[in-house]
Amino acid sequence: MLVVMSHLATQEEIDNVISVVEKRGYMARHIPGGDRVSIGILHNKGSVDASHFRGLAGVKEVIPVTRPYKLVSREFQPENTIIKVGDAEIGGNGMAIMAGPCAIESEKQALTIAGHVRKAGAHIFRGGAFKPRTSPYSFQGLGKKGLEILAKVREETGMPVVTEVMDYEKFDLVEEYADIIQIGTRNMQNFSLLRRAGKAKKPIMLKRGMAATIDEWLMAAEYILEEGNPRVILCERGVRTFVNHSRNTLDISAIPVVRKESHLPIIVDPSHAAGIRDQVIPLSLAAVAVNAHGLMVEVHHMPDEALSDGAQSLYPEQFEALCQKVASIHKLFHQGADT
Amino acid sequence: MLVVMSHLATQEEIDNVISVVEKRGYMARHIPGGDRVSIGILHNKGSVDASHFRGLAGVKEVIPVTRPYKLVSREFQPENTIIKVGDAEIGGNGMAIMAGPCAIESEKQALTIAGHVRKAGAHIFRGGAFKPRTSPYSFQGLGKKGLEILAKVREETGMPVVTEVMDYEKFDLVEEYADIIQIGTRNMQNFSLLRRAGKAKKPIMLKRGMAATIDEWLMAAEYILEEGNPRVILCERGVRTFVNHSRNTLDISAIPVVRKESHLPIIVDPSHAAGIRDQVIPLSLAAVAVNAHGLMVEVHHMPDEALSDGAQSLYPEQFEALCQKVASIHKLFHQGADT
Amino acid sequence: MLVVMSHLATQEEIDNVISVVEKRGYMARHIPGGDRVSIGILHNKGSVDASHFRGLAGVKEVIPVTRPYKLVSREFQPENTIIKVGDAEIGGNGMAIMAGPCAIESEKQALTIAGHVRKAGAHIFRGGAFKPRTSPYSFQGLGKKGLEILAKVREETGMPVVTEVMDYEKFDLVEEYADIIQIGTRNMQNFSLLRRAGKAKKPIMLKRGMAATIDEWLMAAEYILEEGNPRVILCERGVRTFVNHSRNTLDISAIPVVRKESHLPIIVDPSHAAGIRDQVIPLSLAAVAVNAHGLMVEVHHMPDEALSDGAQSLYPEQFEALCQKVASIHKLFHQGADT
Amino acid sequence: MLVVMSHLATQEEIDNVISVVEKRGYMARHIPGGDRVSIGILHNKGSVDASHFRGLAGVKEVIPVTRPYKLVSREFQPENTIIKVGDAEIGGNGMAIMAGPCAIESEKQALTIAGHVRKAGAHIFRGGAFKPRTSPYSFQGLGKKGLEILAKVREETGMPVVTEVMDYEKFDLVEEYADIIQIGTRNMQNFSLLRRAGKAKKPIMLKRGMAATIDEWLMAAEYILEEGNPRVILCERGVRTFVNHSRNTLDISAIPVVRKESHLPIIVDPSHAAGIRDQVIPLSLAAVAVNAHGLMVEVHHMPDEALSDGAQSLYPEQFEALCQKVASIHKLFHQGADT
Repeated sequence: MLVVMSHLATQEEIDNVISVVEKRGYMARHIPGGDRVSIGILHNKGSVDASHFRGLAGVKEVIPVTRPYKLVSREFQPENTIIKVGDAEIGGNGMAIMAGPCAIESEKQALTIAGHVRKAGAHIFRGGAFKPRTSPYSFQGLGKKGLEILAKVREETGMPVVTEVMDYEKFDLVEEYADIIQIGTRNMQNFSLLRRAGKAKKPIMLKRGMAATIDEWLMAAEYILEEGNPRVILCERGVRTFVNHSRNTLDISAIPVVRKESHLPIIVDPSHAAGIRDQVIPLSLAAVAVNAHGLMVEVHHMPDEALSDGAQSLYPEQFEALCQKVASIHKLFHQGADT
Repeated sequence: MLVVMSHLATQEEIDNVISVVEKRGYMARHIPGGDRVSIGILHNKGSVDASHFRGLAGVKEVIPVTRPYKLVSREFQPENTIIKVGDAEIGGNGMAIMAGPCAIESEKQALTIAGHVRKAGAHIFRGGAFKPRTSPYSFQGLGKKGLEILAKVREETGMPVVTEVMDYEKFDLVEEYADIIQIGTRNMQNFSLLRRAGKAKKPIMLKRGMAATIDEWLMAAEYILEEGNPRVILCERGVRTFVNHSRNTLDISAIPVVRKESHLPIIVDPSHAAGIRDQVIPLSLAAVAVNAHGLMVEVHHMPDEALSDGAQSLYPEQFEALCQKVASIHKLFHQGADT
Repeated sequence: MLVVMSHLATQEEIDNVISVVEKRGYMARHIPGGDRVSIGILHNKGSVDASHFRGLAGVKEVIPVTRPYKLVSREFQPENTIIKVGDAEIGGNGMAIMAGPCAIESEKQALTIAGHVRKAGAHIFRGGAFKPRTSPYSFQGLGKKGLEILAKVREETGMPVVTEVMDYEKFDLVEEYADIIQIGTRNMQNFSLLRRAGKAKKPIMLKRGMAATIDEWLMAAEYILEEGNPRVILCERGVRTFVNHSRNTLDISAIPVVRKESHLPIIVDPSHAAGIRDQVIPLSLAAVAVNAHGLMVEVHHMPDEALSDGAQSLYPEQFEALCQKVASIHKLFHQGADT
Repeated sequence: MLVVMSHLATQEEIDNVISVVEKRGYMARHIPGGDRVSIGILHNKGSVDASHFRGLAGVKEVIPVTRPYKLVSREFQPENTIIKVGDAEIGGNGMAIMAGPCAIESEKQALTIAGHVRKAGAHIFRGGAFKPRTSPYSFQGLGKKGLEILAKVREETGMPVVTEVMDYEKFDLVEEYADIIQIGTRNMQNFSLLRRAGKAKKPIMLKRGMAATIDEWLMAAEYILEEGNPRVILCERGVRTFVNHSRNTLDISAIPVVRKESHLPIIVDPSHAAGIRDQVIPLSLAAVAVNAHGLMVEVHHMPDEALSDGAQSLYPEQFEALCQKVASIHKLFHQGADT
């Protein structure tokens, strides 16, 4: 961390900053500059809280220099984390495809869609049993019944299943049924949930918060690793910006940046980024092109009658065509490639 | 809701949209236009999910017309909700001032600061016992010990206390000690927590999410009211934008908009919006000028040694001067005024 | 346009809105709803200014229904606009590659880089002669001398050249030398410049403004078409958001949306979106995957010594590898494909 | 500027960075850290372009330490710039009020509104003669005729007038008529226009760009000062964010930040920030509360018939009430106060 002093700072103010730095247990290094002094903060472990120094008299700015995360960083672990779930593998050279409806609506609906996506080439089945909804008056998911249907899908198709957990109370229940446990965008900084996820025996898929920086996202993952669960999959699903032609703005450059900074696998959810079917296929192809480790796509055989997010669900035949394109492009560029 | 058809839409596509609308239980009204047809959706209660129609063939756009919230809206309840806590009142013509440290660090710290802010004119004491922190390595609050200190502050000063609850598990505990229970910005759409808050006997202070629209924020409050707790205080604390000279961008126009749309009281937290002491006083005055129902301000007697957010905490003498300015400006404009 | 009345609006207020609509020369259609009235505005040509109605008594909201642009829309012209410049074609099924340094620094530099990019497969040479710089103290470009060097490059390599015009005064000069005239992101709504561009004999490349919606961008293009120049190329180069790991956030979904809404070609500038070399290649591949009509990439043979934007310039060998990947992926998906 | 090296950087890479820094004419200072090396760049004048170093091998990050602007900074000139225009003063302790219609529509309209705002207490009359409009089909202003009407208003009321210049070509003409020349938000980085403004004999009012940081805004002002015109008034008018309940988001904290960083006066335009009449008055009061040097407010005596921006124009009686409130709040806090 670098504390930049005002060019009007007095010697007394400089000395005070140094003394505060040292009282906090860090080492202070005085860096004389052209027209102002800076003070470097050196330390041995963990991250330093900039707000400790920002308000001191004579300070113009406090600039973080090192990244605040540790366990999730590639500096800490150079090789990729590879997560195996059933026959699927996430984080290796392959492209993991998760697909299914936004919400589980009935056993028949789930099995029908599972049949379609399995045949098209999906590796993992997705479907919400507990649904976080902006409105208390919208369909909230089938709950436990939905989990049982997911188990049935796994049994009949052999596909592992991923589903969202919304709270601490239902964590045990979801953990019992799911192969991968999803933490949604609105819960990315629900720290109690993250700590619980850190004690889970199953891999966690952590979606990026709607307005989260990559640092904040990786710090959220750090909570999970720090509690003992190293199996975290990151999922980019678009961020909120002024742009109004898509539901969110897919931050496609997040994929190469995260791959460089972290050893954790990163996949893309084009459906929630787009919010509308037409954009899902191009965004999926873009995700493969930037070398994401996987995709999570919403598919519905009768989207006009879906209980949620019908507009962004692909038809089975669209999904099948998408899987073929994904396979070709992935083969073209990334097969056998390292990060 | 208005479904706008493409100017190329066929009669068959138009008929299909009408049929889907009716199958969902709504009434469809055909609205011929200059060069395209629109279909109005009329309904009796609740909100309609735009995604049900956005993906249908021939549809160009789906435009929500009415607001999705009900219980929180001023159309539902024209008169202001006024919340009384101890001697304090939030939502009336007065200006409720909440002040205290970011985090409770010790009994001595809390009582010292409480003495200062009480004398300066604060009505309610704030202080975090459970702290949501971006990093798992930062100070996480004193937990139950912090709540006990808050109780001590109330006992000694007579001030009601407000503190944050981070999760469902600790809700009973926090509810036992707090006079107002705060739900933080990262939990604004933690729906399990909102439902639990709806069953609480204490008023809830609901901070705006970092990237939440006013609609989403009011819908989050709707969850609480819908479960039976009508005593919700909204707190604007800045939103995330590209702007980098403040920690967040205080959305000052949210106050008049919320006052117009909802009967719930709305206060402002200038400390988290600013992130730096220098901006806290101007932002506070701005909040009073736009007729917020209150302020929540961080104050610390030794901010250089604070365990969190020292840089944005006011010194006691600054807070005292602020309270005097707030009182004059409030007197000037808003005393005796209705919305 | 739809004028939604408050559910408290009086008959008199409704009648007044209708009268204002009619005084403006439009037709008003009364649309009774469940609990409120709306008024549709029907008209024969051009767009309607929402602000004419938003402030009228009793009005809750004014909602635009149709798009404000006309000449640029696909509804107006269904088939793609294809622009030919020398041997290159933009807007057809091929992938047009523009490459070169950020700024022309010397004849030697320009010819060296031109040789590299020509060989690698670029179709058009780019290079700034007039540079818009945030700081008046930064290198501002070689001016006319730079244009002469561009002419030399064209002569020696046969590649057409694209370069930026910053103002009306220099337009004649730039038009004399350039094959494609670029209007930069900071000038997207410089309406005098747009009108002048509308009278140009050369194609215009119009970059998206840093915070422009697609509607605003297409309206800026509409200025050019309306003045008589139908040859406009749109260029997505990232928008400004809270995200801080890239210089801008590439809005990859803009490509399919613009292709659907407009007949104009759209290319991508990954260099300015990224701001850093490492991200340029993945963003380029993403652009091809979503079927952009071209790419504009910064390349420098000695980026460490570049006078501007060295950090985001590719090395010649990186560019060559990129061109090969682009060709394969484009061949895979888009050859022979229509929009 | 601080160049932070990767913890994996080799000695050779570090040496290369130092050599590049020195080749650019700066001094390099080697700063050993806990687990990585940084290199400070010391220099005597002007700002350093981060992109020169960001792409070098082994570099993790480049962090600007000092501000890039000079002439506009308070470090350069500690005392406020005070601008006198007729009887009005901007930048002193008083509150300068500019008011008038969005666009000059006719002599009668202008004189009527001028009479109202003069009587209510406005010091300067505003009105657009050349209007930048998103659509080429919207009303574009009366042009020269509008300027002549402004001159008439000045003659009859004694008020100085402020009006926008849209381009270099019309600058001489606008300069002849206006007392203050406005550069609009879309032209904030129209560098040719800024340079011309730097040669003007009249004060310039520079609006903040829709997505401009304060650094970029002050750098734009630097262009004007650097060409020789020290009389620049900054105008905050809201920035573009995800927020959709106001036309733009007024960045109220920009006022204290700019007052601290720069000696230039800063005023607020609440009308364009709000976009709707109801929000204009609260935003105006907020601007006074944070100690802006002035306000620019749109007023129309018949807003329902205005040719542009009617919805955000105050009625004369609203404006009169606003002026009284502004005077009281300003008197309360800021009279006699220094920055």
